[in-house]
Parts: sequence; C-alpha cells; structure tokens
Amino acid sequence: MNSKLQIVNSLSRKKEIFEPSVPGHVGMYVCGPTVYSDVHLGNVRTFISFDVVYRYLVHLGFKVRYVRNITDVGHLVGDIDEGEDKIAKKARLENLEPMEIVQKYANGFHDVMNIFNAIPPSIEPTATGHLIEQIEMVQRIIDNGYGYEVGGNVYFDVLKFDKDHPYGKLSGRILEDLQSGSRDLDGQSDKRNSLDFALWKKAEKGHLMRWNSPWGLGFPGWHLECSVMSTKYLGTSFDIHGGGMDLKFPHHDCEIAQSVAADGADPVRYWMHTNMLTVNGQKMSKSANNSFLPHELISGDHPLLTQGYSPMTIRFFMLQSHYASELDFSNEALQASEKGFQRLMNALEAVESLDVSKAKGTDAEENKQLNDLIDAVYDELNDDFNTAKAIARLFDLSKKINSYKEGVIDIAGVSAESLERLQKEFHAVIVHVLGLKKESGGDTKVAAGLMELILEMRKDARGRKDYDTSDKIRDVLQELNIVIKDGKEGTSWSMN
Amino acid sequence: MNSKLQIVNSLSRKKEIFEPSVPGHVGMYVCGPTVYSDVHLGNVRTFISFDVVYRYLVHLGFKVRYVRNITDVGHLVGDIDEGEDKIAKKARLENLEPMEIVQKYANGFHDVMNIFNAIPPSIEPTATGHLIEQIEMVQRIIDNGYGYEVGGNVYFDVLKFDKDHPYGKLSGRILEDLQSGSRDLDGQSDKRNSLDFALWKKAEKGHLMRWNSPWGLGFPGWHLECSVMSTKYLGTSFDIHGGGMDLKFPHHDCEIAQSVAADGADPVRYWMHTNMLTVNGQKMSKSANNSFLPHELISGDHPLLTQGYSPMTIRFFMLQSHYASELDFSNEALQASEKGFQRLMNALEAVESLDVSKAKGTDAEENKQLNDLIDAVYDELNDDFNTAKAIARLFDLSKKINSYKEGVIDIAGVSAESLERLQKEFHAVIVHVLGLKKESGGDTKVAAGLMELILEMRKDARGRKDYDTSDKIRDVLQELNIVIKDGKEGTSWSMN
Repeated sequence: MNSKLQIVNSLSRKKEIFEPSVPGHVGMYVCGPTVYSDVHLGNVRTFISFDVVYRYLVHLGFKVRYVRNITDVGHLVGDIDEGEDKIAKKARLENLEPMEIVQKYANGFHDVMNIFNAIPPSIEPTATGHLIEQIEMVQRIIDNGYGYEVGGNVYFDVLKFDKDHPYGKLSGRILEDLQSGSRDLDGQSDKRNSLDFALWKKAEKGHLMRWNSPWGLGFPGWHLECSVMSTKYLGTSFDIHGGGMDLKFPHHDCEIAQSVAADGADPVRYWMHTNMLTVNGQKMSKSANNSFLPHELISGDHPLLTQGYSPMTIRFFMLQSHYASELDFSNEALQASEKGFQRLMNALEAVESLDVSKAKGTDAEENKQLNDLIDAVYDELNDDFNTAKAIARLFDLSKKINSYKEGVIDIAGVSAESLERLQKEFHAVIVHVLGLKKESGGDTKVAAGLMELILEMRKDARGRKDYDTSDKIRDVLQELNIVIKDGKEGTSWSMN
Repeated sequence: MNSKLQIVNSLSRKKEIFEPSVPGHVGMYVCGPTVYSDVHLGNVRTFISFDVVYRYLVHLGFKVRYVRNITDVGHLVGDIDEGEDKIAKKARLENLEPMEIVQKYANGFHDVMNIFNAIPPSIEPTATGHLIEQIEMVQRIIDNGYGYEVGGNVYFDVLKFDKDHPYGKLSGRILEDLQSGSRDLDGQSDKRNSLDFALWKKAEKGHLMRWNSPWGLGFPGWHLECSVMSTKYLGTSFDIHGGGMDLKFPHHDCEIAQSVAADGADPVRYWMHTNMLTVNGQKMSKSANNSFLPHELISGDHPLLTQGYSPMTIRFFMLQSHYASELDFSNEALQASEKGFQRLMNALEAVESLDVSKAKGTDAEENKQLNDLIDAVYDELNDDFNTAKAIARLFDLSKKINSYKEGVIDIAGVSAESLERLQKEFHAVIVHVLGLKKESGGDTKVAAGLMELILEMRKDARGRKDYDTSDKIRDVLQELNIVIKDGKEGTSWSMN
C-alpha cells in the first residue's frame, strides 16, 4: 500500500495523518449506550463503525486500549439538566430497582453486540463505578474557578470558561449565538447562565440513585463521566474519541470544557463522529414511526420491512457506507447487500481453493495488476477507514479471483508470492478488519438442498404412479416435522 | 405436592421452612468470582447450584431479586490481608491495566455461564462500583467502636466485637481457638490483634487501584464489598446468602461481623453453602495436578479425561449431586450422566407425543400413582433443593412415560387432566427449574433424516436401474459437499 492512515478529525474538520502520541500504542474512547432500553440501530451503527476502527488499528499492529462506557446514571430524559434520570424513570415504570434496569439492558446490549460480531472493548467502565473520580474532577473544576455550587448543585461556568478558552469549538458553536438562541432563566433554575451545565445534581427526595459528596447527596451530571473515565484509563490527552454526531454538542464540547477546566489539557487528539440513519430517505425516528430495532430488522417483523436480514448482512450493509455518511435503509438496498455479502463470501471460499503451485509468475503485468488491487483495498481503509470503498475494491478482487478460478485468466501469470498475499490479505480484511463471517445455517442450507431433491423425486414418483415412494416420502417428512404444501406455483415446505 | 420448601441453613445447621421476610419476595445474594483468571469448575458448580435455587424460587412464584457480585479489587493473593491484589498481580504479569484484566475475565466468565445455561443475576455489582458505599460502611464501623485506623489502614477489632457479639458463629469458630492457632504479630503488622482483618488498606506506592478516602489513598478490604452490595440492594437483613463452603470462614463470618458492627443487624436469614469438587475421590487442586477448567472438560483435552462432555451433560452431572454434597468427577460417572441426560431428553420428547385424547381416567389406582410420582419430584426439590433425588424421581416418571408410549400401561387409565399435568410439570422441572435443554444439532438431525430417505431412494432407483435418478442424487449431494460411500455394511455419508 502507498498510503498512511488518515483520519478526518471532527475538531480540525481536516483529514490528518494519524500519529498516536505514544508510537505503537493507541488510546481510544467511544461513548457507549445509556442502558435504559433496547439499543437502537443508530447506536449499533456507531459501535460497528468503531469496531472496525479498532480492528483495523489492531490489524495495522497498534496495541490499542479501547474503552467504551456504560452510562448507568446521570443521563436525564431529554438529554438536559432538568428532569428525571432515564434509568430511574424506566425503573419506576417497570417497578424495578434502577440497577436491575441497568443489568437487564446492559445484558441485552452485549447480546446484540455479540450477534453483530463486535469485539468487546478492553475496558467497559460504568458511571456508577467512578463516582469518587467524578467528585474529584468536579472539585478540580471548582478549584480552578470554572465551577460553582448553589444549594447542592454544581454547575460549569460557561461564560467564565469561554473568556479563557473557546467553548463549543468542536461543534463550531459560537457563544453569542448560543446565548441569543437560549431561553432566559425564568427563575426556575439556580444557574448563573442558562448555558451553564450541571456537573453534580442534588438528589431530590426519593431519588434512588444518589451518593454522598462534598455538596450533599446527589449524582453526577451526564457529561462528566466520559471526561473522567476516558482520562482515567487513557491519560489526560489521548488519541481517538468517537461517538454519534448527535453527541458533538453539547456532550463532547462539554467534555472538552471539563478536561480543560480541570486539568488544563485538551483531552482528545482525533475526534471521530458517525452519521445518522435514514429510512427510505427520511430521518429515522420514533415519532416518524419509521424506526426499527435490531431484532426487528433481523426477523423482518416491522411494517416497513419486506423480509428479515441476517446479522452479517446488516453489518455488511452498514459497512457499505462510510461511517461519516448518512446511511439509508431500504428493502432494495438491504436485499442488494444480502446478495453482495453472499458474493463476497463465495469469493472468500474461492480464493482459498486457488492452487498456489500453479502460480508461476509468467505475466508481470497481471502480477502487478493483482498487487495494485490489493494495495487499493488498504488505500481505501487508510483513507479515514473508508469501508464503503474498500468493499468496492474487494469486489474488484472478487472478479479477479473468479477469473483465476474459472480459468478466464491464467493463474500461471501471477507469482506464488502474490497469490499467497492475495489469499492472506483478502481473508484478513474480510474476516479480521471488517469482522464479517460465514453465517451458520450451513445445516439449514444443506436441509434446503436435500429438500429440493426430495420434492423433485416425489414429483417423479407421482409422475410414474409410484405411490409407494411418494407415501414413504410423506411419512418420513412427517416424522421430521416437515410440512409440504402443493400449490399452484409448485410445492413449498416448512418446518414445524 | 405435600411439602413446603425447606432449606438447610448453614447458620443454624438445621433444616428450616423457608419463609421470606416479605411474603412473595426473595432477596438472594451469591458471592461471585474474582475476575483475575478463568473461572474454575468449583465456581461453576456453585453458580449452577444457585442458578437452580433462583430458577426454582421463580418457578414457585416468588419475585426474586438475585444479586451476584464481581470482585474487581481488594482480593489479595492468598485470601489474606497482606500481599498483592490478585488482579493487580495478573495485570503486572500480562502487562495490562488492571481494569483490562477485569474486563477480559469478566467476559470469559459470562461466556462460561452462558454455555452452561445459567440465567444472569438481576444485578451484578462490582466492588469498584461501590467505593463510596464501602467507605461509608467503614466509617460506621469506626463510629460504632469496632474499627480503628492505623497509618492509613483501617482494621476490624475482632476482640472488641466478640465481647458484644459472637464472632465466627457461622463457621463455628471459637475465638480462643482462633487465637491460640494464629501466629503472633511479629512487628510487621500494625494490627492490634492478628485476628483483626482489614476494612481499608493503604495503597502502597505504585499501586494502580486506589481511591481517596478519609484515611488517605487506598482500597477496600476484600470482605467489605459483599456486606455493602448485598445490603445496598437487598436491605440490611435479607433472605438468602450463598457461596462456596470455602468462603464460610473468614469471608462470610466477617460479613456478619461487619453488618452487625455497622448496622446492628444480622444480615442474612438463610445461609447456603455448596460443597467441594473431588476428582476420582481426591480433592481437586492445582497442586495435585488434577484440576481441569470448564473448557477442558468440554473438549476432553486433559490427561485425566478420556473424552469431552457437552455443557448440558456437565450441568446434568452436577445436578445429580445435592449441592451440599461433595461432587466427584470420574470418567465413569460423567459417561453415565451423558447416557442419563439423553434418556431424560428422550422421555421429554416422548411425553410431549402422548395423546391426551386417549386418557380417559379409567384406572383410579394408576391415576393416583402418576400424580404421586409428580408430587415426589416437588417433594425432593422442596427438601433443600435436592436436585439429585428430584432427578431420580424424574427417571421414575420417565419409565412411566415410556410405558404409556409403548402401550405397556394403557394410557386410558389416567385422566386427561393428570396427563396434561404430567406433560406440563415434566417439561417445567427439566427445562425451567433444572435449566436443561436439548443441545443443538436440530438441523443436523433433520439433515440426517433427509439423507436416510435419499439414500433409500437411491438404492430403490438403482434397483430399478433408474440411473437418471441415481445420477441426479449424486450430483445434488456433490453440490452440497456431501460425500457418500458405499461399503459392506451399507452406505454411509459425511459432509466435507
């Protein structure tokens, strides 16, 4: 490959060559889920995107410490400073202890990640697991003059901070615009300014999740945990911070402000943000009634879906867009991905069957072409992890592979070394970097193939009036709980 | 059933009728693993035992809050007060951040629990997730006069406590015996008495896991977390506390002492302890070189094992002993369980195929016999969760089921209601209470059934010299990567 890994940094809005602060090591933090409901598809896309980032960095030889948190307290309904804790609310509705809600949905989240073949992070810290550290960070912010306490609440002083450091630089917000756009304090809040955000919230009476602090019983503000846990495990300034683009503001801008205010350090060197999901061109949202959950997409059990799609088809479909582009769900696109995924898996099988002993290196041009195609895959991946284009290059390689296999191009042309490189890299990129794998159902496929044969033989038997045979077939299928149905368009079968 | 649930309480050493403190609700705490290495088989047995306790309580209609912790800090090598933290030591050896060790082995633990079909607990709290609560409990113990601080360490004052409350009552240890058996303080320790145990340990320089406390930087003592997390989620006095019997002393006796000292409450109403594992009659231990890990037992990859055993066979094998008895591993016993498990699964299939419309209730004696046998299963489970005897009763029922199926006993004798009860309860106890399930290979079984049919039809076709059909069969099978082999003993097949 000719290129070095480059990342489009959301902070500089430029494509930059990636150079970790400690050569050979990468610290990466990704904002994880708030575990109060089933993980939604947008989150799945974000986590699959960063799963590939993680996998590719490891593939390139970096030692990566990958931290993805679980938000189990402090995230209020509406993502704002006032209101009920999302988990406490769900606990109230489901009549459970908040930590039972946390456990239930964290387990569900892990199951979904596992289904989509995402590698677990190196560390998966929780907000409730880092209260002492959060209290200490709040104290440092107060000590440095950027936080103030009012009646058990502690707020971040945005105006004061902005005098010394630009606030909102990640999202590109300008303080004056934010101020003119924000509503006046109506006496309901004890903030100095409506832009100020909570570092520590006083717990109302009856609040189940609360801890002692220098400011009384309370709980941490939502933005705080990520600042604390990322820097605890990765250092005050670390390499990559990822998340969905809806987190840019206020969440990530607040993270920057907190770190600068507490430790004087800009925490993140490369910010990366994944884009949103759309369905048939429209933003996916609950209110538009066009959002489906992962398990609905797999089963096809949703009015907008004409069929179900396997987890690997969905993963492949997601990777066919660049993480920073919008991703549009449609039955047509998913069905195309289903076919494309199968084609790629077939090529993976084909490449492994090519006979290296026949590769003699007799055609320098062909040999160069092959190596250029392999390089091209890496060039795309090095271009801000462009999985969409890398997959297009893998399809170019698939054509080559099929040509070798079918003898359309003489495999003798390429050298044994090049062919071995092809086999190694084609496998590595698909399996290790993109995280795609053959889906089971090998047996199901076999059963389907055998059934096709049996139904044909049943038809033959009936044609020649051999009812012994057709009865025998009926009996055996019945025993196996297989139901056959003769219809106008032929015979179909299903398993009970 | 005739009986009420009874539990042998390790504290009273008596069988007691189980009555939860809040009718209909059960709070249960089980000491979970210290995640610094692969979970060992003794732990697996403990967690499977309490999985059945949990499942049975739920089956009886209780609403159970089941808490099982993850120890991720404070557990020192040798289970004593001096020495290195188990996780920190492993982190040093593996050159990782301690929380990476925690994540790695917690993930592995969850995978193993999943393989053995253990239901995740309602809450799975971690020691590092409850530092504020631990610090507060230490403070309460100090405030009540049962703890003292020396140079950043806080110890529990065992002699002082024992004057007011018996120390060691769970294990039956007598203070005088403990004292005469313990070594003198050799000036290396700052404890008042060698029996005192650490509530909070000062962190040595370079210690990676440490937090601020009123006594300086440090970390909690190992016994503390369970007292804190059990009472936080289940109340100061809760129903059931379980663990391996090796934890009785000092761990569980210290838990009692801590709760009494901090909150004046005896924390646990029913203590339950699982017994140890032996291998061919000898205690399983690393030093005796006769211990194997769960995955070794499954694969059979260990010098002492003649074959591998499936997870459900292993689960079944474990449940064939009462949790409070020693469990002896031997190839013979495991092989017997393998057959027994299959027999039970066959009976489960058979019971579902019995035709209720044929049950007419013409034989009152037979009808009573059947219901008595069903009752007997529950009587055994109610007798301190005696899964060993309950399984024996299930085998009695299996005989009955097979007799009905084969017509040895006329099914008309029993009433439809009784037969439906049999079907419902036999399934519920095996699947929901014992947590046993058919192991995969469902598709494989179908494929095998279809192949049998196809090979027969191939033979027929050849018999009538219909080579079109036999060639067709050969081609389709080839396409499906199925190889058939005609031998002296008939035709066999295999998949490539």
